[in-house]
Amino acid sequence: MENNYLEHPVIKNILSRKSVRKYSPAEVEDEKLEVLLRCGMAAPSGKNVQPWELVLVKDRAMLDAMGEGLPYAKMLADAKAAIVVCAVEEKCDYWYVDCSAVTENILLAAEALGLGAVWTATYPYPERMQVVKDVCCLPEGVVSLCVIPVGYPAKEYNPRDKYVTDKIHRDKF
Amino acid sequence: MENNYLEHPVIKNILSRKSVRKYSPAEVEDEKLEVLLRCGMAAPSGKNVQPWELVLVKDRAMLDAMGEGLPYAKMLADAKAAIVVCAVEEKCDYWYVDCSAVTENILLAAEALGLGAVWTATYPYPERMQVVKDVCCLPEGVVSLCVIPVGYPAKEYNPRDKYVTDKIHRDKF
Repeated sequence: MENNYLEHPVIKNILSRKSVRKYSPAEVEDEKLEVLLRCGMAAPSGKNVQPWELVLVKDRAMLDAMGEGLPYAKMLADAKAAIVVCAVEEKCDYWYVDCSAVTENILLAAEALGLGAVWTATYPYPERMQVVKDVCCLPEGVVSLCVIPVGYPAKEYNPRDKYVTDKIHRDKF
Repeated sequence: MENNYLEHPVIKNILSRKSVRKYSPAEVEDEKLEVLLRCGMAAPSGKNVQPWELVLVKDRAMLDAMGEGLPYAKMLADAKAAIVVCAVEEKCDYWYVDCSAVTENILLAAEALGLGAVWTATYPYPERMQVVKDVCCLPEGVVSLCVIPVGYPAKEYNPRDKYVTDKIHRDKF
Protein backbone atom coordinates (compact mmCIF):
# COMPACT_ATOMS: atom_id res chain seq x y z
CA MET A 1 0.00 0.00 0.00
CA GLU A 2 1.48 3.33 -1.01
CA ASN A 3 0.18 5.85 1.46
CA ASN A 4 2.11 8.90 2.59
CA TYR A 5 0.17 9.13 5.83
CA LEU A 6 2.08 6.06 6.97
CA GLU A 7 5.14 8.34 7.25
CA HIS A 8 3.50 10.57 9.87
CA PRO A 9 5.54 10.25 13.08
CA VAL A 10 2.48 9.43 15.18
CA ILE A 11 1.34 6.75 12.77
CA LYS A 12 4.84 5.31 12.52
CA ASN A 13 5.01 5.16 16.29
CA ILE A 14 1.71 3.28 16.54
CA LEU A 15 2.90 0.80 13.93
CA SER A 16 6.33 0.48 15.59
CA ARG A 17 5.15 -0.25 19.12
CA LYS A 18 6.22 -3.67 20.27
CA SER A 19 6.27 -5.70 23.46
CA VAL A 20 9.75 -5.33 24.94
CA ARG A 21 10.58 -7.94 27.56
CA LYS A 22 14.38 -7.59 27.94
CA TYR A 23 15.94 -4.46 29.37
CA SER A 24 19.43 -3.04 29.50
CA PRO A 25 21.01 -1.94 32.80
CA ALA A 26 20.52 1.73 31.83
CA GLU A 27 18.49 3.80 34.26
CA VAL A 28 15.27 5.41 33.05
CA GLU A 29 14.99 9.15 33.47
CA ASP A 30 12.36 10.34 35.93
CA GLU A 31 11.24 12.94 33.38
CA LYS A 32 10.33 10.15 30.97
CA LEU A 33 8.40 8.24 33.61
CA GLU A 34 6.42 11.36 34.45
CA VAL A 35 5.50 11.74 30.79
CA LEU A 36 4.26 8.16 30.70
CA LEU A 37 1.98 8.85 33.66
CA ARG A 38 0.72 12.05 32.11
CA CYS A 39 -0.02 10.29 28.81
CA GLY A 40 -1.87 7.53 30.63
CA MET A 41 -4.18 10.03 32.25
CA ALA A 42 -4.96 11.63 28.88
CA ALA A 43 -7.04 8.58 27.91
CA PRO A 44 -10.74 8.85 27.21
CA SER A 45 -13.19 7.29 29.64
CA GLY A 46 -16.88 6.52 29.66
CA LYS A 47 -18.81 9.59 30.81
CA ASN A 48 -15.35 11.10 31.52
CA VAL A 49 -15.31 9.39 34.93
CA GLN A 50 -11.54 8.76 34.82
CA PRO A 51 -11.70 5.81 37.22
CA TRP A 52 -7.95 5.17 37.05
CA GLU A 53 -5.18 5.34 39.63
CA LEU A 54 -1.54 4.84 38.63
CA VAL A 55 1.17 3.35 40.79
CA LEU A 56 4.74 4.08 39.71
CA VAL A 57 6.99 1.45 41.24
CA LYS A 58 10.73 2.04 41.33
CA ASP A 59 11.51 0.21 44.56
CA ARG A 60 13.74 -2.74 43.71
CA ALA A 61 12.23 -5.09 46.28
CA MET A 62 8.71 -4.34 45.10
CA LEU A 63 9.60 -4.90 41.44
CA ASP A 64 11.22 -8.20 42.35
CA ALA A 65 8.27 -9.27 44.51
CA MET A 66 5.82 -8.67 41.67
CA GLY A 67 8.14 -10.45 39.26
CA GLU A 68 8.23 -13.47 41.53
CA GLY A 69 4.50 -13.52 42.10
CA LEU A 70 3.28 -12.91 38.57
CA PRO A 71 3.67 -15.77 36.09
CA TYR A 72 4.19 -13.63 32.97
CA ALA A 73 6.06 -10.70 34.45
CA LYS A 74 9.43 -12.25 35.23
CA MET A 75 11.09 -9.47 33.25
CA LEU A 76 10.36 -7.16 36.20
CA ALA A 77 13.65 -8.46 37.61
CA ASP A 78 15.46 -6.40 34.95
CA ALA A 79 13.02 -3.51 34.67
CA LYS A 80 13.97 -0.16 36.17
CA ALA A 81 10.39 0.76 36.94
CA ALA A 82 6.84 -0.39 36.44
CA ILE A 83 3.54 1.36 36.12
CA VAL A 84 0.60 -0.48 37.65
CA VAL A 85 -2.64 0.62 36.02
CA CYS A 86 -5.42 0.48 38.60
CA ALA A 87 -8.95 1.74 39.10
CA VAL A 88 -11.41 2.48 41.83
CA GLU A 89 -13.80 -0.31 40.97
CA GLU A 90 -16.98 1.35 42.19
CA LYS A 91 -16.43 4.36 39.95
CA CYS A 92 -17.17 2.39 36.80
CA ASP A 93 -18.61 -1.05 35.97
CA TYR A 94 -16.26 -1.31 33.01
CA TRP A 95 -13.15 0.24 34.52
CA TYR A 96 -10.99 -2.27 32.62
CA VAL A 97 -12.10 -0.71 29.32
CA ASP A 98 -11.04 2.78 30.37
CA CYS A 99 -7.83 1.44 31.90
CA SER A 100 -7.00 -0.37 28.67
CA ALA A 101 -6.94 2.96 26.86
CA VAL A 102 -4.68 4.30 29.62
CA THR A 103 -2.35 1.34 29.14
CA GLU A 104 -2.16 1.75 25.38
CA ASN A 105 -1.31 5.44 25.79
CA ILE A 106 1.53 4.52 28.15
CA LEU A 107 2.87 1.85 25.80
CA LEU A 108 2.82 4.26 22.86
CA ALA A 109 4.52 6.98 24.87
CA ALA A 110 7.22 4.52 25.95
CA GLU A 111 7.85 3.59 22.32
CA ALA A 112 8.11 7.26 21.39
CA LEU A 113 10.69 7.94 24.10
CA GLY A 114 12.88 5.01 23.14
CA LEU A 115 11.81 2.91 26.11
CA GLY A 116 10.75 -0.69 26.15
CA ALA A 117 7.54 -1.76 27.85
CA VAL A 118 5.00 -4.56 27.79
CA TRP A 119 1.43 -5.10 28.98
CA THR A 120 1.44 -7.89 31.55
CA ALA A 121 -2.15 -8.60 32.46
CA THR A 122 -3.37 -8.94 36.03
CA TYR A 123 -7.08 -8.58 35.19
CA PRO A 124 -9.08 -10.85 34.85
CA TYR A 125 -6.95 -13.19 36.98
CA PRO A 126 -7.85 -12.91 40.70
CA GLU A 127 -4.59 -14.49 41.90
CA ARG A 128 -2.47 -12.05 39.90
CA MET A 129 -4.57 -9.11 41.03
CA GLN A 130 -4.01 -10.23 44.61
CA VAL A 131 -0.23 -10.28 44.14
CA VAL A 132 -0.29 -6.67 43.02
CA LYS A 133 -2.72 -5.71 45.74
CA ASP A 134 -0.41 -7.15 48.37
CA VAL A 135 2.87 -5.75 47.01
CA CYS A 136 1.54 -2.26 46.24
CA CYS A 137 -0.74 -2.10 49.28
CA LEU A 138 -3.79 -1.28 47.18
CA PRO A 139 -6.66 -0.24 49.42
CA GLU A 140 -10.00 -2.02 49.43
CA GLY A 141 -11.88 -1.37 46.21
CA VAL A 142 -8.80 -0.58 44.12
CA VAL A 143 -8.15 -3.16 41.41
CA SER A 144 -5.41 -3.57 38.83
CA LEU A 145 -5.64 -4.15 35.10
CA CYS A 146 -1.97 -4.73 34.40
CA VAL A 147 1.64 -4.13 35.31
CA ILE A 148 3.79 -2.37 32.70
CA PRO A 149 7.52 -3.01 33.24
CA VAL A 150 9.68 -0.22 31.80
CA GLY A 151 13.34 -0.10 30.85
CA TYR A 152 15.58 0.54 27.90
CA PRO A 153 15.42 -2.32 25.39
CA ALA A 154 18.35 -4.74 25.69
CA LYS A 155 18.35 -5.33 21.95
CA GLU A 156 16.68 -4.13 18.81
CA TYR A 157 13.11 -5.31 18.43
CA ASN A 158 11.11 -5.41 15.23
CA PRO A 159 7.39 -4.73 15.39
CA ARG A 160 5.04 -7.44 14.17
CA ASP A 161 3.04 -6.68 11.07
CA LYS A 162 -0.49 -7.52 12.20
CA TYR A 163 -2.30 -6.03 9.22
CA VAL A 164 -4.78 -8.63 8.02
CA THR A 165 -7.15 -7.59 5.27
CA ASP A 166 -9.55 -10.42 6.15
CA LYS A 167 -10.30 -8.62 9.40
CA ILE A 168 -11.56 -5.54 7.55
CA HIS A 169 -15.19 -5.47 6.50
CA ARG A 170 -16.77 -2.84 4.29
CA ASP A 171 -20.25 -1.72 5.39
CA LYS A 172 -21.97 -5.05 5.94
CA PHE A 173 -19.77 -7.59 7.75
CA MET B 1 6.33 20.87 34.89
CA GLU B 2 9.20 21.75 32.60
CA ASN B 3 9.87 18.68 30.56
CA ASN B 4 11.16 18.70 27.00
CA TYR B 5 9.74 15.27 26.28
CA LEU B 6 6.31 16.87 26.28
CA GLU B 7 7.30 18.46 22.96
CA HIS B 8 7.75 15.09 21.25
CA PRO B 9 5.15 14.89 18.45
CA VAL B 10 3.84 11.54 19.64
CA ILE B 11 3.47 12.76 23.20
CA LYS B 12 1.83 15.97 22.04
CA ASN B 13 -0.62 13.95 19.99
CA ILE B 14 -1.57 11.76 22.95
CA LEU B 15 -2.13 14.84 25.08
CA SER B 16 -4.05 16.60 22.29
CA ARG B 17 -6.54 13.84 21.52
CA LYS B 18 -10.09 14.88 22.25
CA SER B 19 -13.59 13.58 21.66
CA VAL B 20 -14.89 15.30 18.54
CA ARG B 21 -18.66 15.11 18.12
CA LYS B 22 -19.36 17.71 15.43
CA TYR B 23 -18.11 17.27 11.87
CA SER B 24 -17.80 19.52 8.86
CA PRO B 25 -19.24 18.52 5.48
CA ALA B 26 -15.75 17.74 4.15
CA GLU B 27 -15.22 14.22 2.87
CA VAL B 28 -12.62 12.03 4.55
CA GLU B 29 -9.93 10.58 2.31
CA ASP B 30 -9.98 6.81 1.89
CA GLU B 31 -6.22 6.76 2.45
CA LYS B 32 -6.73 8.18 5.91
CA LEU B 33 -9.43 5.68 6.76
CA GLU B 34 -7.15 2.84 5.69
CA VAL B 35 -4.45 4.16 8.01
CA LEU B 36 -6.91 4.21 10.90
CA LEU B 37 -7.73 0.55 10.27
CA ARG B 38 -4.06 -0.35 10.04
CA CYS B 39 -3.29 1.45 13.29
CA GLY B 40 -6.15 -0.32 15.02
CA MET B 41 -4.74 -3.70 14.08
CA ALA B 42 -1.32 -2.75 15.46
CA ALA B 43 -2.66 -2.98 19.01
CA PRO B 44 -1.31 -5.51 21.48
CA SER B 45 -3.51 -8.41 22.55
CA GLY B 46 -3.38 -11.05 25.23
CA LYS B 47 -1.34 -14.02 23.99
CA ASN B 48 -1.29 -12.15 20.66
CA VAL B 49 -4.67 -13.66 19.76
CA GLN B 50 -5.83 -10.54 17.90
CA PRO B 51 -9.53 -11.28 18.41
CA TRP B 52 -10.66 -8.12 16.62
CA GLU B 53 -12.63 -7.53 13.42
CA LEU B 54 -13.13 -4.01 12.05
CA VAL B 55 -16.13 -2.79 10.10
CA LEU B 56 -15.62 0.39 8.10
CA VAL B 57 -19.00 1.91 7.43
CA LYS B 58 -19.35 4.59 4.77
CA ASP B 59 -22.85 3.79 3.62
CA ARG B 60 -25.07 6.79 4.44
CA ALA B 61 -28.14 4.72 5.31
CA MET B 62 -26.14 2.52 7.66
CA LEU B 63 -24.53 5.47 9.42
CA ASP B 64 -27.96 7.04 9.86
CA ALA B 65 -29.51 3.80 11.10
CA MET B 66 -26.83 3.41 13.78
CA GLY B 67 -27.20 7.07 14.73
CA GLU B 68 -30.92 6.60 15.19
CA GLY B 69 -30.58 3.42 17.17
CA LEU B 70 -27.72 4.37 19.47
CA PRO B 71 -28.49 6.86 22.26
CA TYR B 72 -25.06 8.51 22.39
CA ALA B 73 -24.07 8.34 18.74
CA LYS B 74 -26.41 10.89 17.18
CA MET B 75 -23.39 12.57 15.63
CA LEU B 76 -23.25 9.71 13.12
CA ALA B 77 -25.75 11.76 11.12
CA ASP B 78 -22.91 14.16 10.27
CA ALA B 79 -20.02 11.68 10.22
CA LYS B 80 -18.54 10.67 6.89
CA ALA B 81 -17.60 7.23 8.10
CA ALA B 82 -17.48 5.08 11.19
CA ILE B 83 -15.30 2.26 12.35
CA VAL B 84 -17.05 -0.41 14.37
CA VAL B 85 -14.58 -2.23 16.59
CA CYS B 86 -15.70 -5.84 16.95
CA ALA B 87 -14.34 -9.18 18.10
CA VAL B 88 -14.94 -12.85 17.67
CA GLU B 89 -16.10 -13.46 21.22
CA GLU B 90 -14.94 -17.06 21.51
CA LYS B 91 -11.36 -16.11 20.64
CA CYS B 92 -10.83 -14.35 23.95
CA ASP B 93 -12.69 -14.07 27.27
CA TYR B 94 -11.54 -10.47 27.61
CA TRP B 95 -11.91 -9.36 24.00
CA TYR B 96 -13.10 -5.94 25.18
CA VAL B 97 -9.69 -5.28 26.72
CA ASP B 98 -7.84 -5.96 23.48
CA CYS B 99 -10.43 -4.04 21.49
CA SER B 100 -10.04 -1.05 23.80
CA ALA B 101 -6.38 -0.83 22.78
CA VAL B 102 -7.47 -1.04 19.13
CA THR B 103 -9.91 1.80 19.71
CA GLU B 104 -7.35 4.03 21.40
CA ASN B 105 -4.94 3.48 18.51
CA ILE B 106 -7.63 4.54 16.05
CA LEU B 107 -8.53 7.64 18.07
CA LEU B 108 -4.88 8.68 18.29
CA ALA B 109 -4.33 8.11 14.58
CA ALA B 110 -7.41 10.19 13.80
CA GLU B 111 -6.06 13.03 15.93
CA ALA B 112 -2.72 12.82 14.12
CA LEU B 113 -4.34 13.04 10.70
CA GLY B 114 -6.45 16.07 11.60
CA LEU B 115 -9.64 14.07 11.85
CA GLY B 116 -12.24 14.15 14.58
CA ALA B 117 -13.46 10.97 16.22
CA VAL B 118 -15.09 9.79 19.41
CA TRP B 119 -15.51 6.49 21.26
CA THR B 120 -19.24 5.73 21.47
CA ALA B 121 -19.63 2.61 23.57
CA THR B 122 -21.82 -0.30 22.58
CA TYR B 123 -20.31 -2.78 25.08
CA PRO B 124 -21.45 -3.52 27.79
CA TYR B 125 -24.97 -2.51 26.71
CA PRO B 126 -26.83 -5.43 25.09
CA GLU B 127 -29.40 -3.22 23.38
CA ARG B 128 -26.73 -1.05 21.75
CA MET B 129 -24.74 -4.09 20.69
CA GLN B 130 -27.89 -5.45 19.08
CA VAL B 131 -28.40 -2.25 17.06
CA VAL B 132 -24.90 -2.59 15.61
CA LYS B 133 -25.35 -6.31 15.05
CA ASP B 134 -28.50 -5.68 13.05
CA VAL B 135 -27.24 -2.75 10.98
CA CYS B 136 -23.83 -4.21 10.19
CA CYS B 137 -25.10 -7.78 9.83
CA LEU B 138 -22.61 -9.12 12.35
CA PRO B 139 -22.57 -12.91 12.27
CA GLU B 140 -23.30 -15.03 15.33
CA GLY B 141 -20.46 -14.75 17.84
CA VAL B 142 -19.21 -11.38 16.64
CA VAL B 143 -19.69 -8.63 19.22
CA SER B 144 -18.98 -4.91 19.20
CA LEU B 145 -17.11 -2.76 21.69
CA CYS B 146 -17.85 0.62 20.16
CA VAL B 147 -18.65 2.72 17.12
CA ILE B 148 -16.15 5.43 16.22
CA PRO B 149 -17.71 8.16 14.03
CA VAL B 150 -15.10 9.91 11.87
CA GLY B 151 -15.13 13.26 10.11
CA TYR B 152 -13.30 16.55 9.98
CA PRO B 153 -13.95 18.64 13.09
CA ALA B 154 -16.58 21.34 12.57
CA LYS B 155 -14.76 23.66 14.95
CA GLU B 156 -11.59 23.89 16.97
CA TYR B 157 -11.57 21.69 20.01
CA ASN B 158 -9.32 22.04 23.02
CA PRO B 159 -8.16 18.90 24.78
CA ARG B 160 -9.05 18.52 28.45
CA ASP B 161 -6.18 18.56 30.90
CA LYS B 162 -6.82 15.41 32.92
CA TYR B 163 -3.50 15.34 34.77
CA VAL B 164 -4.30 14.84 38.44
CA THR B 165 -1.36 14.33 40.76
CA ASP B 166 -3.60 12.72 43.39
CA LYS B 167 -4.03 9.77 41.03
CA ILE B 168 -0.29 9.06 41.00
CA HIS B 169 1.11 6.86 43.75
CA ARG B 170 4.80 6.23 44.35
CA ASP B 171 5.67 2.64 45.22
CA LYS B 172 3.10 1.85 47.91
CA PHE B 173 -0.38 3.16 47.07
